[in-house]
Amino acid sequence: MVRVEVIAYAPTDFIEEQDVTIGRCRELVEKYSVTWVNVVDPDGRTLEELETLFAFHPLALEDAQNHAIASKVDVYEDIVFVIARTIVWAEDIDTDQLSVFIARKFIVTIHDKVFPQLEDVRIRLRRKNPKMLKSGADFLAYTILDLLVDSYFPHLDRLQSLLDRLEDEIIKRPSGEGISRLHALRTDIVRLRNALRPQRDMFGVLARLEIPIFRKETLTYFRDVQGHMISALDTLDTNREIVASLMEVQATLTSNQVNEVIKVLTVIFTITLPIAIVSSLFGMNVAFYGFNEPVGLYIAVSLMAVLTVAVAVWMRRKGWL
Amino acid sequence: MVRVEVIAYAPTDFIEEQDVTIGRCRELVEKYSVTWVNVVDPDGRTLEELETLFAFHPLALEDAQNHAIASKVDVYEDIVFVIARTIVWAEDIDTDQLSVFIARKFIVTIHDKVFPQLEDVRIRLRRKNPKMLKSGADFLAYTILDLLVDSYFPHLDRLQSLLDRLEDEIIKRPSGEGISRLHALRTDIVRLRNALRPQRDMFGVLARLEIPIFRKETLTYFRDVQGHMISALDTLDTNREIVASLMEVQATLTSNQVNEVIKVLTVIFTITLPIAIVSSLFGMNVAFYGFNEPVGLYIAVSLMAVLTVAVAVWMRRKGWL
Amino acid sequence: MVRVEVIAYAPTDFIEEQDVTIGRCRELVEKYSVTWVNVVDPDGRTLEELETLFAFHPLALEDAQNHAIASKVDVYEDIVFVIARTIVWAEDIDTDQLSVFIARKFIVTIHDKVFPQLEDVRIRLRRKNPKMLKSGADFLAYTILDLLVDSYFPHLDRLQSLLDRLEDEIIKRPSGEGISRLHALRTDIVRLRNALRPQRDMFGVLARLEIPIFRKETLTYFRDVQGHMISALDTLDTNREIVASLMEVQATLTSNQVNEVIKVLTVIFTITLPIAIVSSLFGMNVAFYGFNEPVGLYIAVSLMAVLTVAVAVWMRRKGWL
Amino acid sequence: MVRVEVIAYAPTDFIEEQDVTIGRCRELVEKYSVTWVNVVDPDGRTLEELETLFAFHPLALEDAQNHAIASKVDVYEDIVFVIARTIVWAEDIDTDQLSVFIARKFIVTIHDKVFPQLEDVRIRLRRKNPKMLKSGADFLAYTILDLLVDSYFPHLDRLQSLLDRLEDEIIKRPSGEGISRLHALRTDIVRLRNALRPQRDMFGVLARLEIPIFRKETLTYFRDVQGHMISALDTLDTNREIVASLMEVQATLTSNQVNEVIKVLTVIFTITLPIAIVSSLFGMNVAFYGFNEPVGLYIAVSLMAVLTVAVAVWMRRKGWL
Amino acid sequence: MVRVEVIAYAPTDFIEEQDVTIGRCRELVEKYSVTWVNVVDPDGRTLEELETLFAFHPLALEDAQNHAIASKVDVYEDIVFVIARTIVWAEDIDTDQLSVFIARKFIVTIHDKVFPQLEDVRIRLRRKNPKMLKSGADFLAYTILDLLVDSYFPHLDRLQSLLDRLEDEIIKRPSGEGISRLHALRTDIVRLRNALRPQRDMFGVLARLEIPIFRKETLTYFRDVQGHMISALDTLDTNREIVASLMEVQATLTSNQVNEVIKVLTVIFTITLPIAIVSSLFGMNVAFYGFNEPVGLYIAVSLMAVLTVAVAVWMRRKGWL
Repeated sequence: MVRVEVIAYAPTDFIEEQDVTIGRCRELVEKYSVTWVNVVDPDGRTLEELETLFAFHPLALEDAQNHAIASKVDVYEDIVFVIARTIVWAEDIDTDQLSVFIARKFIVTIHDKVFPQLEDVRIRLRRKNPKMLKSGADFLAYTILDLLVDSYFPHLDRLQSLLDRLEDEIIKRPSGEGISRLHALRTDIVRLRNALRPQRDMFGVLARLEIPIFRKETLTYFRDVQGHMISALDTLDTNREIVASLMEVQATLTSNQVNEVIKVLTVIFTITLPIAIVSSLFGMNVAFYGFNEPVGLYIAVSLMAVLTVAVAVWMRRKGWL
Repeated sequence: MVRVEVIAYAPTDFIEEQDVTIGRCRELVEKYSVTWVNVVDPDGRTLEELETLFAFHPLALEDAQNHAIASKVDVYEDIVFVIARTIVWAEDIDTDQLSVFIARKFIVTIHDKVFPQLEDVRIRLRRKNPKMLKSGADFLAYTILDLLVDSYFPHLDRLQSLLDRLEDEIIKRPSGEGISRLHALRTDIVRLRNALRPQRDMFGVLARLEIPIFRKETLTYFRDVQGHMISALDTLDTNREIVASLMEVQATLTSNQVNEVIKVLTVIFTITLPIAIVSSLFGMNVAFYGFNEPVGLYIAVSLMAVLTVAVAVWMRRKGWL
Repeated sequence: MVRVEVIAYAPTDFIEEQDVTIGRCRELVEKYSVTWVNVVDPDGRTLEELETLFAFHPLALEDAQNHAIASKVDVYEDIVFVIARTIVWAEDIDTDQLSVFIARKFIVTIHDKVFPQLEDVRIRLRRKNPKMLKSGADFLAYTILDLLVDSYFPHLDRLQSLLDRLEDEIIKRPSGEGISRLHALRTDIVRLRNALRPQRDMFGVLARLEIPIFRKETLTYFRDVQGHMISALDTLDTNREIVASLMEVQATLTSNQVNEVIKVLTVIFTITLPIAIVSSLFGMNVAFYGFNEPVGLYIAVSLMAVLTVAVAVWMRRKGWL
Repeated sequence: MVRVEVIAYAPTDFIEEQDVTIGRCRELVEKYSVTWVNVVDPDGRTLEELETLFAFHPLALEDAQNHAIASKVDVYEDIVFVIARTIVWAEDIDTDQLSVFIARKFIVTIHDKVFPQLEDVRIRLRRKNPKMLKSGADFLAYTILDLLVDSYFPHLDRLQSLLDRLEDEIIKRPSGEGISRLHALRTDIVRLRNALRPQRDMFGVLARLEIPIFRKETLTYFRDVQGHMISALDTLDTNREIVASLMEVQATLTSNQVNEVIKVLTVIFTITLPIAIVSSLFGMNVAFYGFNEPVGLYIAVSLMAVLTVAVAVWMRRKGWL
Repeated sequence: MVRVEVIAYAPTDFIEEQDVTIGRCRELVEKYSVTWVNVVDPDGRTLEELETLFAFHPLALEDAQNHAIASKVDVYEDIVFVIARTIVWAEDIDTDQLSVFIARKFIVTIHDKVFPQLEDVRIRLRRKNPKMLKSGADFLAYTILDLLVDSYFPHLDRLQSLLDRLEDEIIKRPSGEGISRLHALRTDIVRLRNALRPQRDMFGVLARLEIPIFRKETLTYFRDVQGHMISALDTLDTNREIVASLMEVQATLTSNQVNEVIKVLTVIFTITLPIAIVSSLFGMNVAFYGFNEPVGLYIAVSLMAVLTVAVAVWMRRKGWL
């Protein structure tokens, strides 16, 4: 169900309201230097009000509802529209969309599900962080996007440690199960990387935006987030290459196991061969020397012993025993 | 057989005619603010009339008939010529070409087979969608291309679910058949991606076209379609990497199966070896202790039991039993 | 042996001469609006005459003789020098070089072997195609290069059908021979692609050349050829990916066959094991129940039957029978 | 624990102090032409002083403490902020961050651990190298970064010789262990390459920086370091390709070993088959010619000899013996 | 040991001296229109003299001595510094560095070992080639670099024929040794390609250098060398892809061999199984029909014959015989 929250502030003032109307938000924009409207799971009526009261472009509002849009920046006359993605990792790893409208005196964020990164921003505002209260809407937008990108790193660390553990397991005890888990991890990394890659360019565009609603100082901040974004993608790229390499390792180790098993089979077959052959020979119903007599047993056993030792020595030389 | 359909409209007027001549279309262009001529499976005479009455460039008309042309935008003096591709998925997956001529007061679409996306646009026009009736030919072109790109996503979802199902099957029950189906899917994805990739640049060009027949507002719309196009290609790229990874998984799992089968062979051979060897030994025609007497049976059976247990224990330690 | 052919024309005039001298060609250039000199397998003297009479740059003439030069455009003061490649597919697939000098009033083509594409151009001229006779040397150059690129597509279709057939064969009956044929096809595709790739940029340069000897209209034509060139390379790229994928398929299917063969071995070994073991047991020279009596036979046969059925049931459960 | 060291010099003057305060550093900046402040493992208070006394941007100071930032150049009004990475190779290979603030009259370096490259710079300064004492802070920054890049090459040589040794081992005696070591080496190379790659662009930016604090002459120096950086990355790229190729070699050699082992098994099985079969035949309790008589033995042995020789000849023809 | 050679010429004059001093070279520069100084294996004193007498930048002189620098062009005020690489193929394939300083009236080349390409240039000069004697130092630089690039092609042809031969061998008789030789060849190609790749850009820069010491005409010449360089790299790229494909072929053929060997084992085992089983059955010490009588032999042999034929027929149907 739709939920609208608003925070408005000026260098010396701060107000926070829950479950308000878009109309009320519009009023606050007039009174405060910065107003932040957060719309959760918007319905049609709310979007219409945003279009009429805030003059948002219908295309941008449509994209804010579509959750398969690649990250991007669209610059309208006095509004910058940004689509960013956050990493969500409950059971599977996935990304979720945050739409941000940035204007000179307000920002509007739209999202679908719980967004803990926004709560962190709210806490900073509630604590009346002076730097934030003094800055404009552009700095608030930066703070939100900065915390969004910062929130990637614990996930990336977890991915890293998953990969490290899998690496250990595969090299110590390669098994058929390992390859499926590697594939699952690789799929996650590829999906994540392709979902976050457009965001690098997005921050690049933000860091070079020369428009009145962005102060020059804020561009420096966006450039910094872009640097962090690049680091996150570099980590994903590195892990993508490593997981691909690990798949090849797994394949070779599996081949190697085939090798080992066949060696065992060959060794067992070969080492017992003299006994089998000699006993078969002395089982023939023909009148050999020692037929049905103890001397036959002595000869048979001696032959077995000599041949088995010979085979064992040969195998040891080959390095199989 | 060639078929020409025309729709013409002005903010307060709307007319639709079937099986008309190109001459009639030309007349409508003069009377209405926007005229949309749709030519299905054009013959030589129709193309000639388009060349003489609408002043289309012969090269563009030639490309409109050739169905292996990569998507592109060609800008002539007062006409923009666009080649776009749609996904057709009957039995096999393939793409089909739509050629669009965009001028200030009319657009001409040329295609070969049934094009359901165009019907969706017609329905909007018939319903006298006010936004559309008020806008120019450039907005009509946007609507057509937007619906074209939107029509990709159900196909991509189907491809995705095919891949997911195949992924499940391969990991649960890898078989030789899986690899052929993976290859077929991969071929489809590669063909689709290479056919649609030029379209990303095509929309990029459209979104930056600064010519009189495109209003600045329309460029915003084309930029939005470009965003959707990028998302579609990202999905294809992601799936292309996953299907390639899955092929490696399949290869390793096949190797692993070889391993398992050889293990079974080795275990069966080894576990029955004591019985085979001992019975062969006691089958020798030499005078061993117990030869032709019950005591021989007891010794033989005891030996078999002891050795089999020993082998079983050794195998269990190796983790093969 | 060197051979020089010349065609000269004006809107209302047309002349064709064989085995002429370069001097004669130079004369025709003065008299007609467009002169096309075709030099086959040039010797040193002819090249010198071209340098002195037509003022060609010695470097360009050198490159025209070297047949390993990547496609390119070199723009001299009043001459454009183009190196293009054609596909030759006799037994093996290969490319051949066509060097074209384009000036305002003439073009000179130099090649080594038979060039059927040029004959097609000549036929058009002989038929006094009015569009061609009216146009300048730049349009003649376009016609030659357009027919060159058009001549790629039958070869690409043949390559495609070769690949399709190989694909079918490999998936139905994978064999060691398949991989060698795949490799041969892949080598052909890679060689062709790398030989033709520079041509895409070459046409890109031609389509943007703003020099007096190219009319603006002609640039539109070159842009169109570039589009066809891109399509040709896209096809090669797609097939290159598919043939690489097919190699992986072949590798996995080979592994799978190893699997099948070992399974057959294991099944045969295991299913006959009870008979082998039981007959070996009853072949022992010890006094078991039924020794040398019919009752022994009954017990042995019963044991064999029971155990064989048990093994068969177990194997069917494993899905191996 | 935080440690601040300072070196200040003018063409004819040189001073070095340990464990100083940031305030003292600020004083030296006023007195000397170049002051170099080195901050090891900075704490919060030191960073605050740097912000207030040297007017460093808080974002830059934050990045100087975060050790996962990709190399970059940030240009502030009169300060250039550079993040560079060094290779640390104790047990595992890793990279460490050096943050450098470059102004007209001073540079501040911040790092976490021991940085031997900086000691090399200090030694040059203590020896009162005239070129250095006469040059500005930009040349000092160049010297530091140049020695940093130069310090990569011994590590790259060590990596190279590790790879060469592994290459030899794998080709001579391929084993399952080899693949794990290859993977470890590949992981190191990939990590290193992705960590150092942004530095190429970083030096590219530095070499093109047209700002007052960099003299034009110094840009030539930075361009030279960029050349060395490119060589280092080329070496890593080459080795990355070679190690990937080696993995494929290892996989094929493992497959080949499977082949060899199965050949041995087949040869042993086949070569002893005549003896096994013939002795089994003559072990039948049926009245064949020579049953329980010496002549049976002669026949049996002759048969075995003839068949074994036949099998041996066949195998030698197949090239297996 | 250091060796300095000098050639100086004017349109009508030519002088060549061996083992001269740098001072003498400097004198010749004043007297002749072009002076070419060739320094082999320079020592510290020679480099110092070059720095003082020719005003070379110390960085350039340092790079001229370091032999691991990627090819590049550095433009100083009135000197262009070029690093180029030649292919050296004694036992292993490698590259060697040639440093060239180009000024308006002289060029200085520095190298370490014998450089046969330079001798070819000297021979042209000694023959008083009029084109060369009339041209400036820029044309001499072109001649040297052109011959350098031309000298790649025989090496590339040799590489090609090595690859072709290996291709033939692998497809006809795949063996474990083949993969090692493929890897060696691949390593050579990768090393060569990565060493020569920067040279393509180097010539690109030279061909676009708009500085007084390069006449416009010379740029045309450098553009031509760039074309040849691109062809050389294209050949390396093509061969790199083919050798990688060949490695996959080798891997699959090895797998296929495993297949063949196991098939042989299975066929031998299965075809002899009826004899083994039947003889084992008739070897039981139980009173079957024909026990110790000739009729048993007839039954046994008949059974063996019937079963062996049955197995053979089954195997032929499977295509294994």
